[in-house]
Amino acid sequence: MHATLSRLASLVNGKCIGDRDVVITGLRPIQEAGAGEITFLAHPRYQAFLSSTQAEAIILPMSSPEYKGLTKPIIKVDNPYLALAKLIDFFYPRALPRAGVHPQAVVGKNPKLGQNVSIQAQAALGDDIELGDGVVVYPGVYIGDGVRIGAHSSIFPQVAIYPGVQIGQRVTIHAGSAIGSDGYGYVFADGCHHKIPQVGRLLIEDDVEIGANVTIDRGALGDTVIGRGTKIDNLVQIAHNVVIGEHSLIVSQTGISGSAQLGRYVALGGQVGVVGHIKVGEGTRVAAKAGISKDIPPHSTIAGMAGIPHRKWKESEVIFRRLPKFRAKIMELEQRLAALEQKAGLFPAAGPEK
Amino acid sequence: MHATLSRLASLVNGKCIGDRDVVITGLRPIQEAGAGEITFLAHPRYQAFLSSTQAEAIILPMSSPEYKGLTKPIIKVDNPYLALAKLIDFFYPRALPRAGVHPQAVVGKNPKLGQNVSIQAQAALGDDIELGDGVVVYPGVYIGDGVRIGAHSSIFPQVAIYPGVQIGQRVTIHAGSAIGSDGYGYVFADGCHHKIPQVGRLLIEDDVEIGANVTIDRGALGDTVIGRGTKIDNLVQIAHNVVIGEHSLIVSQTGISGSAQLGRYVALGGQVGVVGHIKVGEGTRVAAKAGISKDIPPHSTIAGMAGIPHRKWKESEVIFRRLPKFRAKIMELEQRLAALEQKAGLFPAAGPEK
Amino acid sequence: MHATLSRLASLVNGKCIGDRDVVITGLRPIQEAGAGEITFLAHPRYQAFLSSTQAEAIILPMSSPEYKGLTKPIIKVDNPYLALAKLIDFFYPRALPRAGVHPQAVVGKNPKLGQNVSIQAQAALGDDIELGDGVVVYPGVYIGDGVRIGAHSSIFPQVAIYPGVQIGQRVTIHAGSAIGSDGYGYVFADGCHHKIPQVGRLLIEDDVEIGANVTIDRGALGDTVIGRGTKIDNLVQIAHNVVIGEHSLIVSQTGISGSAQLGRYVALGGQVGVVGHIKVGEGTRVAAKAGISKDIPPHSTIAGMAGIPHRKWKESEVIFRRLPKFRAKIMELEQRLAALEQKAGLFPAAGPEK
Repeated sequence: MHATLSRLASLVNGKCIGDRDVVITGLRPIQEAGAGEITFLAHPRYQAFLSSTQAEAIILPMSSPEYKGLTKPIIKVDNPYLALAKLIDFFYPRALPRAGVHPQAVVGKNPKLGQNVSIQAQAALGDDIELGDGVVVYPGVYIGDGVRIGAHSSIFPQVAIYPGVQIGQRVTIHAGSAIGSDGYGYVFADGCHHKIPQVGRLLIEDDVEIGANVTIDRGALGDTVIGRGTKIDNLVQIAHNVVIGEHSLIVSQTGISGSAQLGRYVALGGQVGVVGHIKVGEGTRVAAKAGISKDIPPHSTIAGMAGIPHRKWKESEVIFRRLPKFRAKIMELEQRLAALEQKAGLFPAAGPEK
Repeated sequence: MHATLSRLASLVNGKCIGDRDVVITGLRPIQEAGAGEITFLAHPRYQAFLSSTQAEAIILPMSSPEYKGLTKPIIKVDNPYLALAKLIDFFYPRALPRAGVHPQAVVGKNPKLGQNVSIQAQAALGDDIELGDGVVVYPGVYIGDGVRIGAHSSIFPQVAIYPGVQIGQRVTIHAGSAIGSDGYGYVFADGCHHKIPQVGRLLIEDDVEIGANVTIDRGALGDTVIGRGTKIDNLVQIAHNVVIGEHSLIVSQTGISGSAQLGRYVALGGQVGVVGHIKVGEGTRVAAKAGISKDIPPHSTIAGMAGIPHRKWKESEVIFRRLPKFRAKIMELEQRLAALEQKAGLFPAAGPEK
Repeated sequence: MHATLSRLASLVNGKCIGDRDVVITGLRPIQEAGAGEITFLAHPRYQAFLSSTQAEAIILPMSSPEYKGLTKPIIKVDNPYLALAKLIDFFYPRALPRAGVHPQAVVGKNPKLGQNVSIQAQAALGDDIELGDGVVVYPGVYIGDGVRIGAHSSIFPQVAIYPGVQIGQRVTIHAGSAIGSDGYGYVFADGCHHKIPQVGRLLIEDDVEIGANVTIDRGALGDTVIGRGTKIDNLVQIAHNVVIGEHSLIVSQTGISGSAQLGRYVALGGQVGVVGHIKVGEGTRVAAKAGISKDIPPHSTIAGMAGIPHRKWKESEVIFRRLPKFRAKIMELEQRLAALEQKAGLFPAAGPEK
């Protein structure tokens, strides 16, 4: 693919500065881009590369200052990442998989298949499944009885979708994820743990993306729900009866315990843990590795093991490193105080700290 | 399925209060249950729904108080979760998968198959495997040479069971778990890490349940053992030569390092880490996210990064949040002390804390 | 397999002490070894078993002291773990899988297959793939279009290798790992998260081993790179554009965020988190559960949530447990100070800590 700078500018709703007619043949990161290629400065972290990049042209934020000595053609845009997404689609067009059912796929009774469905080799689909137009089922996928998947969704290799799971349109699920398996529910009696059968459903709404090797449990009795537009990273655990609001972000290796409810636009960093049966308010942001153990009001910013506000955590964390100095200081104060007390004819109230 | 309240009461060994002849047609959570359905109050957290629920009847703990205005028929039971498990089995009966070997499954030489074994599409089984009566092998499962699986076990889609693994009766393994893969063992020499071949076994005893995308390594030379009745949640890591006692609970995303030994009835919360070669005593309970780095005596309750007793962790954690106030207080005390010292004709022993 | 002690000694470059002609028929851990078997003492932790072991002979470190009463034949070696690795290879020879393409494997167009390639049942390979000599593709593996895998690599069951991934020689990837899936990249606009297409590559160099259910993302635009000889444990997450140097060790359940760069010989413990876009210097060692949030100089030793040096973390952690005592001490000092101030005719500067 190739295009003039002015055509690319109109593709990304950007403003051309410099030679509008230069022909661009590719797109690469700022350290790697070469002749004929366009690159981008999305994060100030990479500003130092502006002077050395071999790129032909550069995408900059509308708000960026004049960079001295930067004589290359430029496209200025409101949101460089959004421009990047559009340019990648332009320069790296993806071929749609061949439609049809591969002879070494297995499909059960009464399937309802939309237009241009692709069911690839080694897939195993149960009875009474329903796949919308353009759904792609990659090799080795398992789809249980009664599963419905909306149009233009992609199910990558070796995903397992348990019976009865309902999936919306334009949903992507990456390799190896377990979708709708049994939640962790037991009752202890007579010295052992008895399983509470897990018979609820899992509903995944439109435009959700789920990473690789994720686990999402079906409801125990009611439903587990993943709200529209929510994006889930690799190796995340979502337990039974969790409800996640729309447009939330769940970063890798985070775990959400049973029946927790997250509002819309929540963002959880990596390796976060959320205990069960609590509510995390809309728009809340949680730093990586935090533990959330109680209800969190909307629009909070949380960090640390105890799920305390991020600012307070930072303050305490800085002092944590200085605890040895604190101990020394307290001991010194005590000695000085004892000396004063002796001089004043008073006796210390207690012995030294043990 | 439907039944009178009195029949359900006898099913769960409960005591009927109110109309014994009301016909119950389903079972749902307290917020969702409607006409003809029975629900339950298992946790006081949901007590507020008692007055608003549309359910036809309610299961309550034997010990629950009289709820004013609650005029619906009731079944009182010793353990509502146990009753719930029985009622789910009644209202949501599960169809057993069709017995037989699917024509697109592959089975190696000399298999020993019990009665009513189900081997589904796209499964790949090695030589000399042995499956007990009623074993179900779901689509896409891999079972290596020489594996034995006891009666009435279920192996969900895309589980990989490495050669030689021994699995007991009534074991359930959920989708995508890697059972008996190589442990992480290397020796450093000449500037690189040389693999120590992992040739031990993995023994999984009766009545174990293993979640989705779990990893359990075979022994390096001896055995890894998962004790009878132990329940393992999704995304748990169990390293080579770990021995877990009977009836333990390992919650999601927890990792247990090589050669650690857990006693019976141990319960590890989510995202816990256990270092290698240590012993965790019988009946020990560990809070989510804790790190266990040394031997733990039986019946301990542990929390926090350093694996300290749970009560102590809570005390320190509360103070952690107040460290900034502590710093201010120490500085104030020092100033007051210096003023006194000056007045008393003494000089401070040291300058202010840096 | 069996051999005289002197033959085993020459196999491991060791020094025989005692009966050189005793015949050894097996190798087992020190607690389990019996008549005819050799065992080893690699870690002093197991020294107590030296007096009780039923083994026929023992491998000891060259530096080990004389153990009183130990009359069994001995092989002394520089590195017992290295000797162990060689003896396991001797006593537990592994059969190579049968070469050839199983009739129920699916291979796309234009494959280039080396000598003795084994492609097993239920595998699904795309177009234009290239597999070197002796590559083994286990059942249920997916290999996307254009993937290249170097000689003598093994891809265990249900691994998914996305299109275009490049893999070196003698690489091992264990069951269920997702290799080269999309990174987690979105841009927020108009109230929802838009995907940034992930079109970069993933390069895995020679002699890398990857555990089970690992996730490694392809680059967003540039490359993700796993350096030669690096060993990755189960359930590790490696995000897009991460670059890991040669001979590094990444223990289970660790997560490395996007564009982070690790030097050579880095060792990360289990459940570590590394934030994005930072550099971890060569030879750095990070304790389990640590969080790394900024650049780390070479040869550091790091621990704790804030990624502080390991020694400092230990000092502060000890005091953390004693914070309640500290609080009590500060309050006591304040009371004693107030008494002195009163006596001296001074008034306290502030009320008690709230």
